[in-house]
Amino acid sequence: MAEARVGPDTLVAEEPLEIRVGGAALAVTMRTPGDDIDLAIGFLLTEGIIRQAADVLTAKLCSGDEEPNSYNVVDIRLSADVAAPVAQSAARNFYTTSSCGVCGKASIDAVRTRSAFDVSADPVTVAPSVLAALPGALRRRQRAFDTTGGLHAAGLFTPEGELVCLREDVGRHNAVDKVVGWAVRQERLPLTGHLLMVSGRASFELCQKAWMAGLPLLAAVSAPSTLAVDLAAEAGLTLVGFLRGTTFNVYAAAQRVQGVPSLPPPRTRQTAH
Amino acid sequence: MAEARVGPDTLVAEEPLEIRVGGAALAVTMRTPGDDIDLAIGFLLTEGIIRQAADVLTAKLCSGDEEPNSYNVVDIRLSADVAAPVAQSAARNFYTTSSCGVCGKASIDAVRTRSAFDVSADPVTVAPSVLAALPGALRRRQRAFDTTGGLHAAGLFTPEGELVCLREDVGRHNAVDKVVGWAVRQERLPLTGHLLMVSGRASFELCQKAWMAGLPLLAAVSAPSTLAVDLAAEAGLTLVGFLRGTTFNVYAAAQRVQGVPSLPPPRTRQTAH
Repeated sequence: MAEARVGPDTLVAEEPLEIRVGGAALAVTMRTPGDDIDLAIGFLLTEGIIRQAADVLTAKLCSGDEEPNSYNVVDIRLSADVAAPVAQSAARNFYTTSSCGVCGKASIDAVRTRSAFDVSADPVTVAPSVLAALPGALRRRQRAFDTTGGLHAAGLFTPEGELVCLREDVGRHNAVDKVVGWAVRQERLPLTGHLLMVSGRASFELCQKAWMAGLPLLAAVSAPSTLAVDLAAEAGLTLVGFLRGTTFNVYAAAQRVQGVPSLPPPRTRQTAH
Repeated sequence: MAEARVGPDTLVAEEPLEIRVGGAALAVTMRTPGDDIDLAIGFLLTEGIIRQAADVLTAKLCSGDEEPNSYNVVDIRLSADVAAPVAQSAARNFYTTSSCGVCGKASIDAVRTRSAFDVSADPVTVAPSVLAALPGALRRRQRAFDTTGGLHAAGLFTPEGELVCLREDVGRHNAVDKVVGWAVRQERLPLTGHLLMVSGRASFELCQKAWMAGLPLLAAVSAPSTLAVDLAAEAGLTLVGFLRGTTFNVYAAAQRVQGVPSLPPPRTRQTAH
């Protein structure tokens, strides 16, 4: 017999955030309020607009006289030697459009051009037991996930599995930008020798953000996509997926996982319908 | 003892798709190739740019002489009486920006203004047993999910639980746009009396898409966000979450679930950190 419960549990908050540069609207993202300046700075870094904390002169969370969440705007002033981004085009900056066509390779080329960091030579290695412990460490430290069931998490770890920074958001990409923005402000970039663990899947976009921040390893609870694997292989970024229980898959740059010397064989592609 | 497996399983494909209107780039989305014209038309409908199949004169998937996936462009020509969208601004069309601030209410107001359909008066009701059977029906019909673990699904159902249309994608929003685009081309809008079931969470964006398509009920496997609940309540859209096993929660417009007469009590908000 099916059973309905009426009315909400504790819910995860979602509100729009507008990111402005020099007063001009650049992007709107639906995010969980909190760490908004980190989110905006992380977004600018992973989109290739800034490269370091010194590129940001001021970052201000607008606050008005009305109720909380009325004002969801972060305004950022960039240093004079940083090229101003073109309004509204942030989502397209990574795509090169020819007369007719975009493709995965062009997207990967665009990330390669923009990243300030070469992660392929990072000598860090990780024990499989450390990787296997990351999801549990992430969940134990999530403050809200267990009560709402609706928050994604991104955690920055040392190679020994020590948690350095955890951020949660209704959007996985926002959680990663919040971690990266925190690291930018702490002047910790590039994040050489660090691991990033995310709940859910590993998309192209998350691999892009990891590379832009100089991270040598991205691990996800669930599956990666073909383009995520292609980008990770191109970057020399170690990509770990299906990290559950004591098993996981390594999809690229496997040399950083101790005891796993060989490179992945060619993969097959699965297309929907 | 942790165990690593090197090399990929079958992976879910992800490629950029550029949506053009009259030859001008409007948006790029990372999607799983397949049903690309449905995706583009569904996107235009749920963004409020078109309202019916007759608004589209032609829709063309560009195909070149090179390998598959080199050309990921759908070009759409609109009827002369449809206002041309402003390039690059699609992601912002739903947000009203005042001198300083965007907020959830402004986002909801923008959807209300744009939706051609009033879903609040839809008299359809659904048995709890039908709702409880939707996740299983979705999973049984997913062709790729079990092999890749990386695809989201959206399924359109009758009130009796019969599957009408299923689409899968690396992005949940794309899966919904593919279903909606299919329905637009079948001239089935508004989707009065139908149910939409999605894997994963229920975000503001998914509620927006359901309302734009005239759907009276959206059900999700996982949690909704605060703004999703607010939008559903405003629209009179029945929102079901945590639909697992034989239990589920009803967050808005509960009168459509048989045997659940009362409206939800005020909810609490959970904010990350």
